[in-house]
Amino acid sequence: MGITLEQAQKAVQAAHQKALAMGVKMNIAVVDAGANLTAFARMDDAWLGSLDISIKKAKTARFFDMPTGDLGKASQPGGPLYNIEHSNGGLITFPGGIPIKDGSGTIIGAIGVSGSTVEDDHEVAEAGRQAVAGQ
Amino acid sequence: MGITLEQAQKAVQAAHQKALAMGVKMNIAVVDAGANLTAFARMDDAWLGSLDISIKKAKTARFFDMPTGDLGKASQPGGPLYNIEHSNGGLITFPGGIPIKDGSGTIIGAIGVSGSTVEDDHEVAEAGRQAVAGQ
Amino acid sequence: MGITLEQAQKAVQAAHQKALAMGVKMNIAVVDAGANLTAFARMDDAWLGSLDISIKKAKTARFFDMPTGDLGKASQPGGPLYNIEHSNGGLITFPGGIPIKDGSGTIIGAIGVSGSTVEDDHEVAEAGRQAVAGQ
Amino acid sequence: MGITLEQAQKAVQAAHQKALAMGVKMNIAVVDAGANLTAFARMDDAWLGSLDISIKKAKTARFFDMPTGDLGKASQPGGPLYNIEHSNGGLITFPGGIPIKDGSGTIIGAIGVSGSTVEDDHEVAEAGRQAVAGQ
Repeated sequence: MGITLEQAQKAVQAAHQKALAMGVKMNIAVVDAGANLTAFARMDDAWLGSLDISIKKAKTARFFDMPTGDLGKASQPGGPLYNIEHSNGGLITFPGGIPIKDGSGTIIGAIGVSGSTVEDDHEVAEAGRQAVAGQ
Repeated sequence: MGITLEQAQKAVQAAHQKALAMGVKMNIAVVDAGANLTAFARMDDAWLGSLDISIKKAKTARFFDMPTGDLGKASQPGGPLYNIEHSNGGLITFPGGIPIKDGSGTIIGAIGVSGSTVEDDHEVAEAGRQAVAGQ
Repeated sequence: MGITLEQAQKAVQAAHQKALAMGVKMNIAVVDAGANLTAFARMDDAWLGSLDISIKKAKTARFFDMPTGDLGKASQPGGPLYNIEHSNGGLITFPGGIPIKDGSGTIIGAIGVSGSTVEDDHEVAEAGRQAVAGQ
Repeated sequence: MGITLEQAQKAVQAAHQKALAMGVKMNIAVVDAGANLTAFARMDDAWLGSLDISIKKAKTARFFDMPTGDLGKASQPGGPLYNIEHSNGGLITFPGGIPIKDGSGTIIGAIGVSGSTVEDDHEVAEAGRQAVAGQ
């Protein structure tokens, strides 16, 4: 459904290369249009706790078709979606998850990255996304 | 228990019609007085993540016999029910879930809607509720 | 993904009519090609425990693209898939879940029924499937 | 812990190539010595339900340091480990999961494969194991 394994592995590889260049240790997950895990890589010595977070970021980005950080802005105390994280078996709503679109703008999957600061996570996810977006 | 399948389907249909009129794509769930799912409809291309949220909204509204948004006011940091969302396998406490009462004021079930802004979600849920309330 | 809400509701309605004709009380669930719940109906006074079973039957039929009873033959003690039911958050592998194909033979979703004997469950599910298959 | 990402990806790639040669569509998972997912690939159009099973097979093989099919012999009715599948969030005890050892015989991880018959699953897992074992 949506992204192919070849595309998903290309996204993981690009994110991996970016992480190596930045000197960070990441968990990198790509899900398809059905939010099913399609490709995954855990860099040596990356945080153990980031494994689950990377997968949840990718799923969250596809569940709501937006970057995870955007959802997090609305889920703060007093915000309209406060504590939405309790749905779908657990969401992660800080940056590091980004939808992936094909050339026609259709969402074909999403990438989620976790292992460093949320800024780093997002930057690595973005590198993965760009490697396959618009195809 | 409480709402009949005929009533539940009438509520789903009314909410569905309202959503079509508003141009939004919703997941619509109705539970009975025992908080058991009774009728459900997922509009084509509605957010994947809203499926679980719509059911949790309907259950939450019946679990505490109040609109989900009312519960959310009390679950904020510093509030009396802070993080109540951790109970019952996950609650959703922002607007979009509303109890349904019969003609005598007895709660017979609840409706939960998710797929757009919380204001839209509530409006669509309200349309479903009105189609069967007071009967 | 796959089956439309209109098709899913048509399948639920046909299964419901069949159940009424047979004098049985059923829970009827239809999932799309991504195994996401798309339409659901719980007949008045149907077994409470059958709600979850009907949804799990529909999901199981799509997870492995075969009638649930076929999977159950392989999951018996000594069989090649013994205790496969522990995967995917819980499978149901006795009859009552059937994949739904379109006119080209592509699986577009599945229907799951629970509330009576497994023979009755399967017969009602089959009525729902036939109402939309091949379209 | 144990297997490196480079080794895990090599195992996934070898299993993928074997699956292509056999004409089967597999989910392929590799976990490290801590039973944490390290690399994963889901071939296009592989069974949705096999995703979770492939990961559970890899984990089960490392949890008990033996091929999953060996554990399944002991978990049958009347056997010493009857229904051990209920532990650890769900085990899969039919063939397709195999521990991976380094040159000194130390277990560094495990591979789990799901998507066809258990014989095929085991054969593809074995191809992945051999690509990195003894190093």
